[in-house]
Amino acid sequence: METIASIGESESLRRTISRLNKGEHELVGPGDDAAVIKAESGSFVVTTDTLVQDHDFRLDWSLAYDLGWKSIASNIADVAAMGAVPTVLVVALVAPKTTEISWLESFADGLREACLALAPGCAVVGGDLASGEQVVIAVTAHGDLQGRQPVLRSGAKPGDILAVAGTLGRAACGLELLFSGNTDGANAYDDWVNVQRRPQPPIAAGVAASEAGATAMLDVSDGLAKDASRIAAASAVTVQIDPLQLQGFEAVLEGAAQALAIKPAAKTADEYGRAWVLTGGEDHALLATFPADATLPRAFKRIGVVIDAVPGAPVLLGQQPIGAGGWDSVTG
Amino acid sequence: METIASIGESESLRRTISRLNKGEHELVGPGDDAAVIKAESGSFVVTTDTLVQDHDFRLDWSLAYDLGWKSIASNIADVAAMGAVPTVLVVALVAPKTTEISWLESFADGLREACLALAPGCAVVGGDLASGEQVVIAVTAHGDLQGRQPVLRSGAKPGDILAVAGTLGRAACGLELLFSGNTDGANAYDDWVNVQRRPQPPIAAGVAASEAGATAMLDVSDGLAKDASRIAAASAVTVQIDPLQLQGFEAVLEGAAQALAIKPAAKTADEYGRAWVLTGGEDHALLATFPADATLPRAFKRIGVVIDAVPGAPVLLGQQPIGAGGWDSVTG
Repeated sequence: METIASIGESESLRRTISRLNKGEHELVGPGDDAAVIKAESGSFVVTTDTLVQDHDFRLDWSLAYDLGWKSIASNIADVAAMGAVPTVLVVALVAPKTTEISWLESFADGLREACLALAPGCAVVGGDLASGEQVVIAVTAHGDLQGRQPVLRSGAKPGDILAVAGTLGRAACGLELLFSGNTDGANAYDDWVNVQRRPQPPIAAGVAASEAGATAMLDVSDGLAKDASRIAAASAVTVQIDPLQLQGFEAVLEGAAQALAIKPAAKTADEYGRAWVLTGGEDHALLATFPADATLPRAFKRIGVVIDAVPGAPVLLGQQPIGAGGWDSVTG
Repeated sequence: METIASIGESESLRRTISRLNKGEHELVGPGDDAAVIKAESGSFVVTTDTLVQDHDFRLDWSLAYDLGWKSIASNIADVAAMGAVPTVLVVALVAPKTTEISWLESFADGLREACLALAPGCAVVGGDLASGEQVVIAVTAHGDLQGRQPVLRSGAKPGDILAVAGTLGRAACGLELLFSGNTDGANAYDDWVNVQRRPQPPIAAGVAASEAGATAMLDVSDGLAKDASRIAAASAVTVQIDPLQLQGFEAVLEGAAQALAIKPAAKTADEYGRAWVLTGGEDHALLATFPADATLPRAFKRIGVVIDAVPGAPVLLGQQPIGAGGWDSVTG
């Protein structure tokens, strides 16, 4: 059985690179000390994020393909959240020496397929492979604003519409199904488990939001409540979410919630659904604010409004202040 | 005592970012989903590399400051090797939850000071912090070719001069002093130990080489022999190193080599010096080829010539074929 240690870094990288798609943006691709990338509009967007084994994923719950996919999806969502088109990524992988080459190849397949499916024209143009005790995937993603101004977190104004593109709570629901050990439940609701494994962020909605005049935007990676509080803090406003407008997101999760609520002392199905939608981040939806008279792009659904800052209450659910609960990548 | 877990990711990042220098190239810095970087010449260079605890460094041998410094130095050397000016970096850090904030702050100080010392105007513009069992530092570095063509590995031609900027073998010597447990030796030759900890790659020499017409170039990160073989392979030539022209690199290491050769069964001092210069990579020198009639930039010293490909001998030391010995980041 071939492992990355048995064939070495160079050959392992060669096998990986041979499975990647060729993007539209590179002038010099893999094989030199660095890649050279087009930036014809005179600037580029850059963001980095890390996935760590047993913190951000478990190898018994996610295939290598899933991890490749998720690495791309979660990073290009950050690019989209600036109003940019994802262009190129570099991927650094740390893995144990005993990692099989077939695992690495499946990982590369996931990288490729996520690029092709979520952001055509975008590709991985470079990487690094190193050995370590646990798998760590560090991705840096780049994008092109194509001459548009970036959409920051700080531009929301009282009176703006709050809207979301993509799904909320499904990945968190999928994760809880996996943690529950409820195999029947996980199988019955494998769509939500698969959102956890291979999120489908609405990448094109980022540019659409920018073109529609979005005043603020971010990628919901740590949960609606926490990420809404970030817009509130950066823009010095309060974000008021309408609980009625979350019901659609909660309703689709009801069956899975009921499957999990069977156990004594567990939450009710309603509590599950609400918690997932408010604090689940890994769907990588886009949360944006728009002027009241804007025409929302089709991908966006209105879920609230921006109001004058309410002291001590950056986020309201209806009239109720809610804590900025969510996922902290250090404290969990 | 404050740790990254006790204050959380956001506050840890805020403390780190506050210690960084502000670069000349960012339009939008840390704090949004992504940074926005100037690329007025219409392209950018990008490269990524990883440092893994107990594989690439040991926490008892390198301070956090040293690791910050080395993360910058090793990555911008790859940018320089393309003939580009380093502009911005993003740094993803994985560290145990128990990591003290003071460690993180020293790491940030090392990032800042390396940027200021090695590539003024260059800065870290974004990052990520995650928890894991061992420290992993994944850095992505960017550069600007300022309208020049990139210097690739593939352009060396028979008749070209082979030349190196920077030092060879000192970091490997420093590492061997540390491994030896010979504290007196490590103290007496702490200059070489410090090259291992805080390499000083000749960043400006990359642009100078490009302007002088360099036909091929790379960063010596895995050892002169191995990296010369990469130019040979990419350019379909043989690289002939003149052993006499390595003597200067070896001579400065002679004292340290003698200190290590005291132990029975160890190599002779000469063998140490030669091995360090041929296979030690972490000085991050720049190895380049130039047309025979080029005026070498001052930072470069001639060490050989490029000749027609000799089958089975990509690198010759004098008339002697040498194996592509060096460091493989997976197999060690």
